[in-house]
Amino acid sequence: MNAEFDGRRGRWIGAPVRRREDPRLVTGRGRFLDDIHLPGLLHAGFVRATVAHGRLREIDLTAVREVEGVVAAYSADDLELGDIVALLERPPEEFTPTTMPILARDKVRFVGEPVAIVVAKDPYAVEDGIEAARVHYDVLDAVVTEEAALAPDAPLVHEEAASNVLLDVTSFDTPGVDEAFEDSDCVIELVTTSARQNALPLETRGAIASWDDRDEQLLVQTCTQVPHQVRTVVARSMRVPEQSVRVTVPDMGGGFGQKCVVGREEVAVAAAAKRLGRPVKWIEDRRDALTAGFLAREQRYRTRAAFTAEGRLIALDADIVCDMGAYSCYPFTVGIEPLMAAAEMPSVYRIPAYRVRARAITSTKAPTAPYRGVSRPQYVMVMERIMDLAGRRLGLDPVEIRRRNLITEFPYHGVNNVTYDPGSYLESLELGEKILRDEGWYELREQAAAEGRHIGIGYSCFSERTGYGSEAFAKRKMSVVPGFDLSEIRMDLTGSVVVTSGTMNHGQSHETTFAQLVAERLGIDIAKVKLRQGDTERIPYGWGTFASRSVTIGGSAVATAATRLGEQLCVIAAHLLGTRVENVELDGDGGVIRLDDPAQRMTFEELADVAYLRSHLLPKETPPTLTATAAFDVPGDGTFSNATHAVVVEADPGTGGVRILRYACVEDCGVVINPQVVDGQARGGIAQGIAGALFEEVGYAENGEPSAASFIDYLVPTAAEIPDISVDHLETPCAFTESGAKGAGEGGTIGAPAAVLNAVNDLLWHTGVQLESTPIHPESVLTALTGADRTEKAGTPV
Amino acid sequence: MNAEFDGRRGRWIGAPVRRREDPRLVTGRGRFLDDIHLPGLLHAGFVRATVAHGRLREIDLTAVREVEGVVAAYSADDLELGDIVALLERPPEEFTPTTMPILARDKVRFVGEPVAIVVAKDPYAVEDGIEAARVHYDVLDAVVTEEAALAPDAPLVHEEAASNVLLDVTSFDTPGVDEAFEDSDCVIELVTTSARQNALPLETRGAIASWDDRDEQLLVQTCTQVPHQVRTVVARSMRVPEQSVRVTVPDMGGGFGQKCVVGREEVAVAAAAKRLGRPVKWIEDRRDALTAGFLAREQRYRTRAAFTAEGRLIALDADIVCDMGAYSCYPFTVGIEPLMAAAEMPSVYRIPAYRVRARAITSTKAPTAPYRGVSRPQYVMVMERIMDLAGRRLGLDPVEIRRRNLITEFPYHGVNNVTYDPGSYLESLELGEKILRDEGWYELREQAAAEGRHIGIGYSCFSERTGYGSEAFAKRKMSVVPGFDLSEIRMDLTGSVVVTSGTMNHGQSHETTFAQLVAERLGIDIAKVKLRQGDTERIPYGWGTFASRSVTIGGSAVATAATRLGEQLCVIAAHLLGTRVENVELDGDGGVIRLDDPAQRMTFEELADVAYLRSHLLPKETPPTLTATAAFDVPGDGTFSNATHAVVVEADPGTGGVRILRYACVEDCGVVINPQVVDGQARGGIAQGIAGALFEEVGYAENGEPSAASFIDYLVPTAAEIPDISVDHLETPCAFTESGAKGAGEGGTIGAPAAVLNAVNDLLWHTGVQLESTPIHPESVLTALTGADRTEKAGTPV
Repeated sequence: MNAEFDGRRGRWIGAPVRRREDPRLVTGRGRFLDDIHLPGLLHAGFVRATVAHGRLREIDLTAVREVEGVVAAYSADDLELGDIVALLERPPEEFTPTTMPILARDKVRFVGEPVAIVVAKDPYAVEDGIEAARVHYDVLDAVVTEEAALAPDAPLVHEEAASNVLLDVTSFDTPGVDEAFEDSDCVIELVTTSARQNALPLETRGAIASWDDRDEQLLVQTCTQVPHQVRTVVARSMRVPEQSVRVTVPDMGGGFGQKCVVGREEVAVAAAAKRLGRPVKWIEDRRDALTAGFLAREQRYRTRAAFTAEGRLIALDADIVCDMGAYSCYPFTVGIEPLMAAAEMPSVYRIPAYRVRARAITSTKAPTAPYRGVSRPQYVMVMERIMDLAGRRLGLDPVEIRRRNLITEFPYHGVNNVTYDPGSYLESLELGEKILRDEGWYELREQAAAEGRHIGIGYSCFSERTGYGSEAFAKRKMSVVPGFDLSEIRMDLTGSVVVTSGTMNHGQSHETTFAQLVAERLGIDIAKVKLRQGDTERIPYGWGTFASRSVTIGGSAVATAATRLGEQLCVIAAHLLGTRVENVELDGDGGVIRLDDPAQRMTFEELADVAYLRSHLLPKETPPTLTATAAFDVPGDGTFSNATHAVVVEADPGTGGVRILRYACVEDCGVVINPQVVDGQARGGIAQGIAGALFEEVGYAENGEPSAASFIDYLVPTAAEIPDISVDHLETPCAFTESGAKGAGEGGTIGAPAAVLNAVNDLLWHTGVQLESTPIHPESVLTALTGADRTEKAGTPV
Repeated sequence: MNAEFDGRRGRWIGAPVRRREDPRLVTGRGRFLDDIHLPGLLHAGFVRATVAHGRLREIDLTAVREVEGVVAAYSADDLELGDIVALLERPPEEFTPTTMPILARDKVRFVGEPVAIVVAKDPYAVEDGIEAARVHYDVLDAVVTEEAALAPDAPLVHEEAASNVLLDVTSFDTPGVDEAFEDSDCVIELVTTSARQNALPLETRGAIASWDDRDEQLLVQTCTQVPHQVRTVVARSMRVPEQSVRVTVPDMGGGFGQKCVVGREEVAVAAAAKRLGRPVKWIEDRRDALTAGFLAREQRYRTRAAFTAEGRLIALDADIVCDMGAYSCYPFTVGIEPLMAAAEMPSVYRIPAYRVRARAITSTKAPTAPYRGVSRPQYVMVMERIMDLAGRRLGLDPVEIRRRNLITEFPYHGVNNVTYDPGSYLESLELGEKILRDEGWYELREQAAAEGRHIGIGYSCFSERTGYGSEAFAKRKMSVVPGFDLSEIRMDLTGSVVVTSGTMNHGQSHETTFAQLVAERLGIDIAKVKLRQGDTERIPYGWGTFASRSVTIGGSAVATAATRLGEQLCVIAAHLLGTRVENVELDGDGGVIRLDDPAQRMTFEELADVAYLRSHLLPKETPPTLTATAAFDVPGDGTFSNATHAVVVEADPGTGGVRILRYACVEDCGVVINPQVVDGQARGGIAQGIAGALFEEVGYAENGEPSAASFIDYLVPTAAEIPDISVDHLETPCAFTESGAKGAGEGGTIGAPAAVLNAVNDLLWHTGVQLESTPIHPESVLTALTGADRTEKAGTPV
């Protein structure tokens, strides 16, 4: 730990303060979207496409409008809304912009696509209305697989594009790639795939819109991670000034990225409410959430990696294809996944030569959104598989081959033109290994093998860029650059403060950790600090919460605002105490003291009394009121959290089912503001990573019909499937965030699939079979363990 | 007009822009407090004292709680709220602080005082509950008149005070007063009284409070002129941090000062909502509004004025008694009326010597609040009566004697230690006279007298300090100094702006005039400007709207914020256009142009796009977002609007009823931002002034029972009684408000009683009777016109 940053710890930073949101959440007093009732509230639902690809011949809503209780039904032609456009600033040979209409127009492009909105007096009438809709399609061939999308005669999902490849970028092609492969002692070739997944927040999406005649403003209450972006899209789509739309966010039951893009349903609900002059509520049901909500993760990597005999990785050549589904979303676009993968795939390793081609393809499946970790769970899985495979080939154990390749000197400027700030890449690996060794898992593995049990050990090492600043996003050539965030802090007459952030908590405990930052900076009890978020009127702009940016960017803005407020308090106190500002300081207990006479003290209440109620006593040039604002943007390439996950798994020889015996996470997100919160983030992320490694998968039939429309088919792990997870913290403070913290929201999800897959392949190694896709199906494990004979049996009903 | 200020006029300033609030208000789409419905809303009302003065022996709410539909009933002991304290920073010999409990405790001090709050599922059950309450009093003697209050053995309204005189200040006693009287050629002695009045906003008071578990905040929706003050009192009284209370204000149907103080009912409703965890609505009914709402105006002046033979006023000696009723209010106090009267009584005249004693007495009548004009209608009436009477005595016509005494050189520092900024005192008088002469009213008066008709002409001249700044209030030794106000302006991605103000429109058309200020400063269409007000969360603090401070202080803050935003736009544009900031300017059409090449232009939309979405392109040190804030405080003694009112009245010889034949207002509120709005303010104020002059009066029986509990007894003039009113504008710009405007809200009310009373006394002069009290009763006029004989008749039923 850097001594310089020790000063950032204190009474509040680093303290395991209990989550302040929990008392209301665990006693049922949270206010989630569906808890909100308004007088005259109408309910809405969507007529959705029943075919994956088809030309819309007729949308007949006559019968819908005759259903008792139905108030209105609108198709695209009725609402005349502008489309959602997501762009990149890329040349046309690299990128083809496409648009997403709010309601399908001319064509439908996935099963579940909204075709019409039905508004009724209760949710039952909504469902009856939806049933009554008659939509006629000229059915077109579905585009479900990568192969189908890339076929020369593939049906075009978007006719305005020349093909189904909407992005095709060779981001890096550094000198020496081919030479390195020629000179190498060992080449690993690998095709790795990850299935479509659903981020699956406990709370589905939804929105309540209501028009206010007095303020001439549409209030859109919605569960989103990005309230200002929802405002932008709603305003643009409805062609009204942004000031005519207010977006607020109640308590949220998760988002995980699915809610960091703007849903077309949110816009349709807003437009319907405006049209009807009555409040309209839409709550996505689980079937729609599973099939028509934003999905994620479907990627395929074709990779070659060149190693020296000593195990040094000397070149990497990757071909990445991300299946983005039918549409691009705002504010992100089809570029977000492939471009991140291309830029960051070298991961934690020193690689001298790198070539990558990254493509985004469109298909007739639900559109995707960033999901916790974005492309990192996938490329980390690739890199960690490469390390294990090369180690096997070269006779180096997994820890040793990683040790020989890990970045250990910082800042490190990579072949990918990314600068990594200091981290504990090697230290976390060594601690992870030590934990497993000390606990005897290596011995158990040997012993178990002797007993015919199948136990494997797997590691993953990764770092994760957190808090992308505007420079980092600009490098990616996004059409919008979600870099900064803002905070405003106000102290009231009682010396309590309200701090506002443009980030939006949806489970990350901002109410607690941001308050800790403020309490520390001002020297007041956390009880005197209240966070407000999720309201576009409270702050001029905010980019919201995604990409583990909240504490790094939002938190830094909050801390800076608090510091500025503290400075203001000192200026006023010095004036009133008749001394220079250098002669006073915050006393850490809600007051300002005179340094040369600490008995001379003014409490914040006394200072606030002057600032608000007796402003004539303030120093000249000091504005009345105690308030401060701050913007914060992470410079350069941002800051990298890192971790090692060390996993022990056992496969059931009878079913091929994989059970996790031990899960150790050694993580480094810089200064830990609240260890309980970071532990919770790590454990939750790991659970989602395990879900991706072993269970969750959205499949599609050849005609584009999704296979998982309920929890019968979409396998969500429960507490029985997720093991206890230990979390150890290393702390390499970040030099340029205000708290020294780095992001902690996504790491768990990123490391889990790689570690679990490596562990499974460890126990399969002796079979000669290695699996390179997630989720790992029990039948694949069983096949490998038992050979082809047993595979037949595994396929028969039990 | 000062050439310097011509530049302040433009496309928007001075334009008769139609009131932007009218479309919604006249089509019934306004949202007033009683229009607000919330799920689970409960209703509240108050058990009120039935005696004017009594010790509370028992409050028995048992039967109340048994009424079907009643949810709760609380007395003071149940709610345990802190009292409302209004203070002055005065020595104890000058001022006695007293407190007002939220619900009566120990004693009641006026008929209608709230004793308990009843909460029920509907307003009917509330009324039934109130009926069921049993409150037992030990009745004490009421204190109704000044004489009773000042009697040596008077019952004490507040036992903690030594007498019923709560404030007794000799503000001025300049040298030479007695000598001037000795040396004078003419002394006018006068006792003038004005009756209790009710400001009588069309919308009565009310509040809706609801507790929010998620934000841990009490939302108090209330119709108030001072939202932040309501927050302060609710928070203090409930002993919670201010951040735990949010006050918002919907559309308001008037306030006129009655809503610039905090009502105890607002606090009780808030406390009940918090206690019950359900929303509670209270809407004051008209009976309560008439008897238990804040009242106003009850003052008595005993005045002597010394004149030279030439008609020069050389000394003024006044004894002022203001009957403040039972309690002091927050943020004002019993001092507000007498102290203003004492400080400003010299009015528009040059007076070398001045002595004044000002007292506030307490009585067992409803407490008072500032009412449009505060003490100015009263002291102006006194001064204008003095002028007319001295003129009569000295053979000078009303215009001539005023001409000889009016302040004509500015700035003028008065004997009252007040500095008057430039005005058109003489010019407005001369124009007023010219209007009446040109229209032949003087001839008509002569002619009518010959025909036995009774026509009189009256003038009033006055100025009015508007927009008290913190220095002006500090001079008054208030315990809080409501000087500054704040504004924040935000431009959104569409180049539209939202501007926030701490002032609170309740009929003054801020939505229009403030938007004009912003449109002018930024050079954008007014349609792109939206004002938000009446929300304590939107702005750190705001003192609200009273004392004609909105446009002078709030408007100046708004204009300053807009200017700062314009500067920001120029900085960004210069950077992007690659030139110095001195080489660009706003082009008056939503863009910034390069001065040396005006074809190089950036629109506000383009600049906003960079500021929000591509912040990495901004100049260093320029924060992302387009937002600016400003605080504004009027320096020194503030700015004085002025006017002359010229009135022609006729008395009905049969009834003594007074009809206004002609009402001319020549007013000068500096730069007129919107003539329609100023005209509306003037006319509305004059109507209220006429009401005070001729009609409205709250009387009390000896036992403290109010006489006017409905519109049967409280005579509100209708359109039939209020004449057409002409309004002419002179414009002497204010040098230190941003727009050059002065306040315009109160003037009409101030000038009317004096002008009407002078006109009536003009027609009575030949009878030898002069009336010195308002309202002018028809029977008094009749008595004077017909002598004692007819008086008897007038008293008999018709």
